[in-house]
Amino acid sequence: MINIAMLGYGVVGSGVAELIFRNRDKFKDELNEELVLSKILVRNISKHIDNKNKELLTEDIDDIFKEKVDIIVEAMGGLDPSYEYVKRALNMKKHVVTANKDLIAEYGYELLQIAKKNGVTIHFEASVGGGIPILKSINECLVGNEIKSIKSILNGTTNFILSKMNHNGMSYTEALELAQKLGFAEANPESDVKGYDAARKLSILSTIAYNRRVDWKDINIEGITEIDEYDFKYAKMEKCSIKLMGISKLGSKHIYATVMPVMVKEDSVLGKIEDEYNAILVEGDAVGDVMFSGKGAGMFPTASAVFADIADIVKQKRKKCITFSSEKAEIDKSWGLKGKWFLRVKTQNRVKIIQGISSSFKSCYILSSTFSGNKEEVVAFVNADNEVCIDNYIEKVKSEGEACDVKKLLILH
Amino acid sequence: MINIAMLGYGVVGSGVAELIFRNRDKFKDELNEELVLSKILVRNISKHIDNKNKELLTEDIDDIFKEKVDIIVEAMGGLDPSYEYVKRALNMKKHVVTANKDLIAEYGYELLQIAKKNGVTIHFEASVGGGIPILKSINECLVGNEIKSIKSILNGTTNFILSKMNHNGMSYTEALELAQKLGFAEANPESDVKGYDAARKLSILSTIAYNRRVDWKDINIEGITEIDEYDFKYAKMEKCSIKLMGISKLGSKHIYATVMPVMVKEDSVLGKIEDEYNAILVEGDAVGDVMFSGKGAGMFPTASAVFADIADIVKQKRKKCITFSSEKAEIDKSWGLKGKWFLRVKTQNRVKIIQGISSSFKSCYILSSTFSGNKEEVVAFVNADNEVCIDNYIEKVKSEGEACDVKKLLILH
Repeated sequence: MINIAMLGYGVVGSGVAELIFRNRDKFKDELNEELVLSKILVRNISKHIDNKNKELLTEDIDDIFKEKVDIIVEAMGGLDPSYEYVKRALNMKKHVVTANKDLIAEYGYELLQIAKKNGVTIHFEASVGGGIPILKSINECLVGNEIKSIKSILNGTTNFILSKMNHNGMSYTEALELAQKLGFAEANPESDVKGYDAARKLSILSTIAYNRRVDWKDINIEGITEIDEYDFKYAKMEKCSIKLMGISKLGSKHIYATVMPVMVKEDSVLGKIEDEYNAILVEGDAVGDVMFSGKGAGMFPTASAVFADIADIVKQKRKKCITFSSEKAEIDKSWGLKGKWFLRVKTQNRVKIIQGISSSFKSCYILSSTFSGNKEEVVAFVNADNEVCIDNYIEKVKSEGEACDVKKLLILH
Repeated sequence: MINIAMLGYGVVGSGVAELIFRNRDKFKDELNEELVLSKILVRNISKHIDNKNKELLTEDIDDIFKEKVDIIVEAMGGLDPSYEYVKRALNMKKHVVTANKDLIAEYGYELLQIAKKNGVTIHFEASVGGGIPILKSINECLVGNEIKSIKSILNGTTNFILSKMNHNGMSYTEALELAQKLGFAEANPESDVKGYDAARKLSILSTIAYNRRVDWKDINIEGITEIDEYDFKYAKMEKCSIKLMGISKLGSKHIYATVMPVMVKEDSVLGKIEDEYNAILVEGDAVGDVMFSGKGAGMFPTASAVFADIADIVKQKRKKCITFSSEKAEIDKSWGLKGKWFLRVKTQNRVKIIQGISSSFKSCYILSSTFSGNKEEVVAFVNADNEVCIDNYIEKVKSEGEACDVKKLLILH
């Protein structure tokens, strides 16, 4: 049995509690190990009175340390009192998992030293890029590489604001207000819009990538508060949009590290990272460019990374390799969802095929002429409930001798 | 000391040997463990007569098994004799690392069973997506998720061919010939262009993602041999390009799995994956969409993944957590590379600023009028050797009182 205590029960904490609950059976089946969430520290119990886990709640930190706990999940954020609590946990030889980039950017080195001294670990995958598995990828999967550079979009709030300014013509203030309304920005957005949050994450990433401590306070930091609608018009002239990027680069002696708004080709992979998404483009000397993208924040993306850290701690005790299930999957060969399809029908009876397509599909768009100039071809885009509808249509026109060949392509959005 | 023997010394094998050599010191420093490449099996020693590792070569498989070997790297490809050799290695309680998707798609289940029985492991990260860390990410980092779907571009050869057809107006035959000339396609390209290679990789990915064995022979497989230039014109009408996609989706009972060419919005992240690049978009119930992309093949990308597997096996013996270096990095705050910059200068003396920009930078493009209609503003794109040049210019115009405010943005390509 693995006992987990959690500090904090806000957005991230609730997500972690839910994932522990959802995965309990799977975990027991695969690792023969039971995950138990045994205590949760909250500031004010009366605020959680209807919560299904209310019997686990306490307002007293000493209750947490009294419990026979294996892993402590820190989900409070900020430095005070997280820093003191995490230090205390490590010194009591508890493993710690945290999503707290402020804590790791500020005290990561010290906390890792304390953990090592006590023979425990502190994991913090969720502190950078939310659910994107980036720290483990750099630390383990790219271990044979010298990392040359990192180009990254690490702050979802600013990426959301800039996306709205770019695509919806909003002013900075309008976009910020929308972000606040939708919960993508805090009431006091300073740490996001001034680039501090991205700088803290870049410092953690770079420290691991280059194996040298990159202090976030040494990084050049510019925010997005000065970007206006005209900047986007000028960017368009270069076929660019504007993104707040965290960039670091290994030099011969120094590490270049900056957080600043840059124009990025709209046509590039990073230019396509919109709204609250994050992306990290890592350049390794062996692997070349590898890109990771996904939601950089939010309840379940963050909890997904925290849960993986918990699983890692548990598996270290009972190391387990990848397994292939003994159960053979049954395969569905046909696209089962509603979708748009492209059809290209070779026929000597265009009129009949055109009539047939119109009546066979709810909605369709049939081209009046084809690019090939081939008079024995009908080209159409159709909407269908699933691939079976498409295949039935094709079988029908072929068996009735109306078409000699039909090409189909799914249009994926 | 960790003894490694390698089967095969072609493109992948040479890359692995080089990475073991490059990382030997780092490995010793960090893990106090020496990596030694002790033997390499080749078909014909006389072909490698000038190789720096020639004293390690043997043509006799029994020499490999005679050595006191901890890890065997299989870098031959194909099924015969790889399958027999790998089975023999596992039964002799050697750990195995392989990049061989044919082998894993065909015999993965059996080989994992044999490994388990013998208390060793078989790792195969490089078998899917080359250097992209995808199998470990699904298996460990997304362990708290139920994987809902996978959309992927898993074959670099076909993606290269389709990219050339889309962007350079090449015919299928022309693009294939170019791919063969550049080494992206084999003399017999059947396994790539008919979709078998992608199907094998999709089966490995899906088997791990859904924890049910997905046999590649059960997957619907369509290749790209029927795609012609007109298809791309029709795709353009939908603002799409055409990609060979491996798609799988968890259903209530079945798993949908297909490899087929589909039209993909050019504007989407997957639509931006060009040439020999691969990409895997994984949808988890907690994390949402996470995308991984990078080079899906080639000497060093593949070797990067093989090396990470070797490191994993070694670290399992001496488990080591992330560390933050005790050495503090010196930070370079200024972009040190040649680059294009956007400048927006607020001034009451436009003529002087325009003259100044022209003489300060080797090449520049100054707008004749501004979008804001502001007569007290100059907007320009300039090329500079580094950020210091830009900052010096800004300092100069400010100190001389010519400009009251200057905005600068790097243009990232």
